[in-house]
Amino acid sequence: MSAPPRSNERVAYFNGEYVPEREVVVPFRDRSFKYGDAAFDMTRTFNHRPFKLREHIDRFYKSLRYLRIDPGLSPEEMIRISEEVLTRNVHLLGPDEDYWIGQRVSRGVDAVGDEGWQHTGPNVIVECMPLPLKQRARQFRDGVDIVVPAVRRTSPDALSPRAKTHNYLNLITADMDAKASNPQAWSILLDVNGNLAEGTGSNIFLVQDGEIYTPRDQFVLPGVSRQTAIDLAAQEGIPLHQRDVDLYDAFNADEIFITSTSWCIVPARTFNGQTIGNGAVPGPITKRLTDAYVRFVDCDFVSQYLKHA
Amino acid sequence: MSAPPRSNERVAYFNGEYVPEREVVVPFRDRSFKYGDAAFDMTRTFNHRPFKLREHIDRFYKSLRYLRIDPGLSPEEMIRISEEVLTRNVHLLGPDEDYWIGQRVSRGVDAVGDEGWQHTGPNVIVECMPLPLKQRARQFRDGVDIVVPAVRRTSPDALSPRAKTHNYLNLITADMDAKASNPQAWSILLDVNGNLAEGTGSNIFLVQDGEIYTPRDQFVLPGVSRQTAIDLAAQEGIPLHQRDVDLYDAFNADEIFITSTSWCIVPARTFNGQTIGNGAVPGPITKRLTDAYVRFVDCDFVSQYLKHA
Amino acid sequence: MSAPPRSNERVAYFNGEYVPEREVVVPFRDRSFKYGDAAFDMTRTFNHRPFKLREHIDRFYKSLRYLRIDPGLSPEEMIRISEEVLTRNVHLLGPDEDYWIGQRVSRGVDAVGDEGWQHTGPNVIVECMPLPLKQRARQFRDGVDIVVPAVRRTSPDALSPRAKTHNYLNLITADMDAKASNPQAWSILLDVNGNLAEGTGSNIFLVQDGEIYTPRDQFVLPGVSRQTAIDLAAQEGIPLHQRDVDLYDAFNADEIFITSTSWCIVPARTFNGQTIGNGAVPGPITKRLTDAYVRFVDCDFVSQYLKHA
Amino acid sequence: MSAPPRSNERVAYFNGEYVPEREVVVPFRDRSFKYGDAAFDMTRTFNHRPFKLREHIDRFYKSLRYLRIDPGLSPEEMIRISEEVLTRNVHLLGPDEDYWIGQRVSRGVDAVGDEGWQHTGPNVIVECMPLPLKQRARQFRDGVDIVVPAVRRTSPDALSPRAKTHNYLNLITADMDAKASNPQAWSILLDVNGNLAEGTGSNIFLVQDGEIYTPRDQFVLPGVSRQTAIDLAAQEGIPLHQRDVDLYDAFNADEIFITSTSWCIVPARTFNGQTIGNGAVPGPITKRLTDAYVRFVDCDFVSQYLKHA
Amino acid sequence: MSAPPRSNERVAYFNGEYVPEREVVVPFRDRSFKYGDAAFDMTRTFNHRPFKLREHIDRFYKSLRYLRIDPGLSPEEMIRISEEVLTRNVHLLGPDEDYWIGQRVSRGVDAVGDEGWQHTGPNVIVECMPLPLKQRARQFRDGVDIVVPAVRRTSPDALSPRAKTHNYLNLITADMDAKASNPQAWSILLDVNGNLAEGTGSNIFLVQDGEIYTPRDQFVLPGVSRQTAIDLAAQEGIPLHQRDVDLYDAFNADEIFITSTSWCIVPARTFNGQTIGNGAVPGPITKRLTDAYVRFVDCDFVSQYLKHA
Amino acid sequence: MSAPPRSNERVAYFNGEYVPEREVVVPFRDRSFKYGDAAFDMTRTFNHRPFKLREHIDRFYKSLRYLRIDPGLSPEEMIRISEEVLTRNVHLLGPDEDYWIGQRVSRGVDAVGDEGWQHTGPNVIVECMPLPLKQRARQFRDGVDIVVPAVRRTSPDALSPRAKTHNYLNLITADMDAKASNPQAWSILLDVNGNLAEGTGSNIFLVQDGEIYTPRDQFVLPGVSRQTAIDLAAQEGIPLHQRDVDLYDAFNADEIFITSTSWCIVPARTFNGQTIGNGAVPGPITKRLTDAYVRFVDCDFVSQYLKHA
Repeated sequence: MSAPPRSNERVAYFNGEYVPEREVVVPFRDRSFKYGDAAFDMTRTFNHRPFKLREHIDRFYKSLRYLRIDPGLSPEEMIRISEEVLTRNVHLLGPDEDYWIGQRVSRGVDAVGDEGWQHTGPNVIVECMPLPLKQRARQFRDGVDIVVPAVRRTSPDALSPRAKTHNYLNLITADMDAKASNPQAWSILLDVNGNLAEGTGSNIFLVQDGEIYTPRDQFVLPGVSRQTAIDLAAQEGIPLHQRDVDLYDAFNADEIFITSTSWCIVPARTFNGQTIGNGAVPGPITKRLTDAYVRFVDCDFVSQYLKHA
Repeated sequence: MSAPPRSNERVAYFNGEYVPEREVVVPFRDRSFKYGDAAFDMTRTFNHRPFKLREHIDRFYKSLRYLRIDPGLSPEEMIRISEEVLTRNVHLLGPDEDYWIGQRVSRGVDAVGDEGWQHTGPNVIVECMPLPLKQRARQFRDGVDIVVPAVRRTSPDALSPRAKTHNYLNLITADMDAKASNPQAWSILLDVNGNLAEGTGSNIFLVQDGEIYTPRDQFVLPGVSRQTAIDLAAQEGIPLHQRDVDLYDAFNADEIFITSTSWCIVPARTFNGQTIGNGAVPGPITKRLTDAYVRFVDCDFVSQYLKHA
Repeated sequence: MSAPPRSNERVAYFNGEYVPEREVVVPFRDRSFKYGDAAFDMTRTFNHRPFKLREHIDRFYKSLRYLRIDPGLSPEEMIRISEEVLTRNVHLLGPDEDYWIGQRVSRGVDAVGDEGWQHTGPNVIVECMPLPLKQRARQFRDGVDIVVPAVRRTSPDALSPRAKTHNYLNLITADMDAKASNPQAWSILLDVNGNLAEGTGSNIFLVQDGEIYTPRDQFVLPGVSRQTAIDLAAQEGIPLHQRDVDLYDAFNADEIFITSTSWCIVPARTFNGQTIGNGAVPGPITKRLTDAYVRFVDCDFVSQYLKHA
Repeated sequence: MSAPPRSNERVAYFNGEYVPEREVVVPFRDRSFKYGDAAFDMTRTFNHRPFKLREHIDRFYKSLRYLRIDPGLSPEEMIRISEEVLTRNVHLLGPDEDYWIGQRVSRGVDAVGDEGWQHTGPNVIVECMPLPLKQRARQFRDGVDIVVPAVRRTSPDALSPRAKTHNYLNLITADMDAKASNPQAWSILLDVNGNLAEGTGSNIFLVQDGEIYTPRDQFVLPGVSRQTAIDLAAQEGIPLHQRDVDLYDAFNADEIFITSTSWCIVPARTFNGQTIGNGAVPGPITKRLTDAYVRFVDCDFVSQYLKHA
Repeated sequence: MSAPPRSNERVAYFNGEYVPEREVVVPFRDRSFKYGDAAFDMTRTFNHRPFKLREHIDRFYKSLRYLRIDPGLSPEEMIRISEEVLTRNVHLLGPDEDYWIGQRVSRGVDAVGDEGWQHTGPNVIVECMPLPLKQRARQFRDGVDIVVPAVRRTSPDALSPRAKTHNYLNLITADMDAKASNPQAWSILLDVNGNLAEGTGSNIFLVQDGEIYTPRDQFVLPGVSRQTAIDLAAQEGIPLHQRDVDLYDAFNADEIFITSTSWCIVPARTFNGQTIGNGAVPGPITKRLTDAYVRFVDCDFVSQYLKHA
Repeated sequence: MSAPPRSNERVAYFNGEYVPEREVVVPFRDRSFKYGDAAFDMTRTFNHRPFKLREHIDRFYKSLRYLRIDPGLSPEEMIRISEEVLTRNVHLLGPDEDYWIGQRVSRGVDAVGDEGWQHTGPNVIVECMPLPLKQRARQFRDGVDIVVPAVRRTSPDALSPRAKTHNYLNLITADMDAKASNPQAWSILLDVNGNLAEGTGSNIFLVQDGEIYTPRDQFVLPGVSRQTAIDLAAQEGIPLHQRDVDLYDAFNADEIFITSTSWCIVPARTFNGQTIGNGAVPGPITKRLTDAYVRFVDCDFVSQYLKHA
């Protein structure tokens, strides 16, 4: 990188300091750059307030523990830093905008020892980024087009999909396959057994005959939004089952929706090119859960997205 | 990172320029840092001359093509840059030292667009690093202790082990399991079918009754050193078979050896704690292939390693 | 079906008689209608002469034997009937047209015994049909767009893909998934192990570095055109390997082509949306094999297709 | 087919008309004849009244939707037609007889366009057939001999066993293997994971220590009779679990019974040649459920079968 | 064996007689010696009283039935004999000692018929043996070191892990692999799907967030101690789930414990080299269940073990 | 065992001594009795001369090494002992009789230490037994009835089928299933991938179009008779392929034969109830190989068997 260009005003936490985002750079021998040897997590804000930060940090520490990476910070410190990052950046948001807040810890830098990098331990980054409201508004309006690619989600006996790590190539190559024919496609992969698993940072739910089905959590990231949807379904009195679901279920679903941190809940329109149910977007159960979600987070994220359409 | 510390004198190629290694830093939103969304390759020098640079670069471009990453440079340019990096750093080597030379290309930087990073396209790095001769000398003297962990090598229908990517967590977590009981252990993973596959950047060969067996290349990185060993076996008139090999084969092997870019060929001493064959390190076939390798590369890498013991 | 409408003039063999095609109707309790409990085979003519009829009939009898269906006719009789069907219909072809000739045997009719159907044994049909030259001309001109769907080819321990049966739903549903995003897509399924298998009535070949690779025949129909391509490659001195090939191979192929009875050899243009090799359609090896095929069958099928474009 | 022979008096619905059964014939290019490209369902009558027709039609439309076949009729119309078919044929039944009532829809006819077939859209057939009371009476008296063949039930990622399609070769070839040594054998296949799945149109239940176990519905047809048994067990206060069951469970079962549309509930006598439990046919739980079934359908189907022995 | 040496005073039941242990010898053509063609079970005493003898004998007869071995004795007789063996040997125990009591039945002797062996039917042995309190005391004090080997537990479609047979080589070879690097390691194998299964005669339980998880019983021996732990958890109001658990669960467990007949409940210290939870041995839930177990069996087995340390 | 009964006159080697067979008894705590923790091998004599004793002993030591059992004897000693056992028993054979000669080594005796057994190390037995010529004569006359059971051969990642161990329950339970419907059935199991593997101590070969196919040796015991057949096929100029073969191959085979130590080569008559090829027993290739086998061993084993019919 040559001379410092003009930049935004956001700051991020980086190994103990709050610095402008553009100064958060890592040596090329950092193990996350070389190997994806890191974990991360990501929450969002609603009306500029962080959502379930504790739950995200708890999941983050499980990912780290699975990878046997020691971040050198307690969960409580990580929460406090995340809040501080938000505090320092919140004034940059417009009223209809919100942030993603992400935590990332790499195992550190592989160094001969003479490169001149002062810091070779874990690289700890906490950062925020405006939600891509504009890019994703169309899907709130029209529904998501789900496409199942041929690539299978990595088997848990190779690398657990439950850990949110910096190894995303399985999801990335699968998504490129799905998008090859339809750039608007959202890929949902099958797991090693041929059941529906998950998409990039997103969980899938099927509705049939007034009941909801979502894959068991062994083969998918246990999404915090997924858990919120599960809790809200219970609260709404809608039966919800965590079980193996497959293509037969999907083609016969009355409704399908996706959950993710940024989307919360978003309805799907087609599944492998077939209109889902009678084509209503969102369907009644999806609508009901979305409304409950909006109430729960006290933020009408649907309107927020649509405003950016 | 705070004030610039004292550093080595090596330089690396970084997106069009040759800069001191310590200046090769990437934004934290680089996709290889975030996702391991990158490929790399790595050759070594013998007597300060690069080994099979063309073959390594060819494999590198296959990895990139599988990932659908465009490096923006032709293979010929990548070779030329690699040679230039060596030229600019070779004077820093002692007479008994040699370099790893690595090429790395990430897909680029995910940016809101306002971070102030000038470069958001592919990050291209070509760099060199002294071989870890001292750390690995013991294994040339005593033989490698191979341990097979429970974690299985990622299945090719999730992410092909033939592509040399920046997604190494499968190999890293497996290796931590193997080293948990024996820090000297070198892990060799089983593939999805339960056959011997590969270790981190390394291939395995079994010798029995004067013939050599090595796993088929679908489940392993097609190592350049592996291919060299295959070619040298043919030249030496030693029958060599690429086929599925499993634990039964390994426990009944007369000799086992490992190939890798840095090691070339190194003998193994134990397999899951059992002495291999009659315990000779190296065994006669391994010795013969090693000698042929030394002649082929015109560099006595065994003595080189042992000098650093 | 109500009053007999106007019809073509083609005749077909049906249980011992040659009748107008429109009279070849089967009771709804025929086991092939109810269960797909039947086998078939299909050759084509070149310049109105049947291609490798003996080889097709041999394969047909293997399918029947696997299903334990007795057609009540010897292979020699089946060949003679096929030739007779051609003779009786050949005058209906234009000069640039050719026929598919198909043989079909169902296990027979499940009947209470009182339905009034005279014939309840195997239904034996031999028929011909003009090749869809117009519909497929585009792909000879531009190349096939290969898409790999998520549905896997039926495992041989459930129903062998080597038998050409009337159970095609696995291929049909997979193809609908592939065509959902791109109606021009030609689906090639993965087998149970995640290797490339086959498409509907079609085999896949990859070319890399001047050598050809095609899946082993255990997971695919052993196509007669596939075998012709294999034989012609040998004759042309082009190395050809029957081995497991997967997505990594396909993304790194210099050329890909498809063989089938109707197409003979047709080049592919894209694989999961990525341009194959340097984009030449056909590539040089495909061209060379196609030319050899044209010479072998003494019919320029490429020109024949392009005339109908 | 030549001159019209003498026939029964039953009529069937065929694409909008009610015609004598012997006139329900389909062109040989119908996709169900060629590919088994169709779905069906089948209920039975008790005392000449149809059983759970709505449930069968609902399942039928799920099969059609999975196959993406549009029957051109609503479920309500399909129910009405089924009732009409029964009405038109019921007078042909003796007092101790009952009907199967079946609905079948094929995707339509593949035609060059000149064959002279007026109808090339979906072929829709609704028909009835006397139950095979005589042939199956022995099994009500003595119990079924269950044999597990080596052929595995098709994996859901190839073709879902939950869809009742015209692709039955997997079940047919498996059944031939089971019957090879014992023509009385009733085959129950294992699924892709080695668990007990299902037989041709039939589900299996194991009883142990007063509780009932039946395979999860992902790998089997969700039988309407199966569901009836599940509901009746609940009503009778007999604990019933849908879970993976395997050979160990079967050899240790106190009782085993089969459910199917025609049989309702029938006891098994042996499992792979071993006497089940203490050999009582039916065992006490099977008896209790059978009695409840008889009450529920208000028809003593056991006596009905035995009368025909 | 030459002249009879001095021996202990224990007696065992052997085919109808109570004889000194040293006289319980079987012909080398006994099928259990040749093939491991036998089943066994094993309970222990607490304060010299047998534990859940009925449950163990019930499981024993399930194993026998799965193997289709007829022991020639009823379960009640087997219980009575087991009690008699204990009665005849109990006076040999010290106050802090207890017995294993084992039942073993082989299918019998394969004989030409002229070897001179009177007894060729099932060999039935009931025997007792002092518990290895001294050898296992360390693990009660320090915790077990769990290591997961690469060898997978035999698949239920080959031989059910639920049957307690004399075929232990799968477990034995796996355990040798685990102990190769750490002789103190206790191996827990993965099942065919990559989930945690079981160790030699032992079940695994994970604790997280105050709830307990243990593998489903299809892939593991349904341990009587395992069932006791499950019952005691219910009694203590600790939620317990039988579900698939994998390496991610294990690395994130707060506590892990093992159950077996001899150990009852023993805490684990490390899992693949990583300290479990915060390292407390036993953790609070393990302690609570252990205390409940001690009360339930009315024997402080922990103190008993520690006395022998 | 009570008073010594009358016995045959054969002697066996037992831990250093040659003793009457009836004295070869092992303590019930021998690990082969308890766990099948032992390996064995078995050759036969032709005209009272041992067949390929060296090859059998080599395979035996591979089994032992895989199990990590040290027999305490060199292969040369084991050969010498085997010859001595034959020498001491050969006079008991009639002129048309021959022996099996078996070697067995268990890992030793698990002992508290006070049982009074002098020998607790490996139990080493070398023994002979007349071949079951009479029992198997029918199959030489009529051909073997092959039946494929549902039980799958143990996966190599659980316990390698290549090691000839005392763990035979997988094969035994599978064989009971196959024999349940047909007591004359000879079971051939499928491997974990659904390919034909092997039967109890026996290998399968298919003949089609004059070429021979037999499963790869990873999933089967590498039979010495199998290797003999392979060598003789080469010598006879009959192409032979080691490759995956499945049910499709078997149903389409012209001939099938089985090899085993006792049978050498025996033709099959039916495969899962279907007549093989045209029903000739033996078929021409089987006959030719059998004749070559007879010449090679200089013993007409077919006549020998038929004499005992």
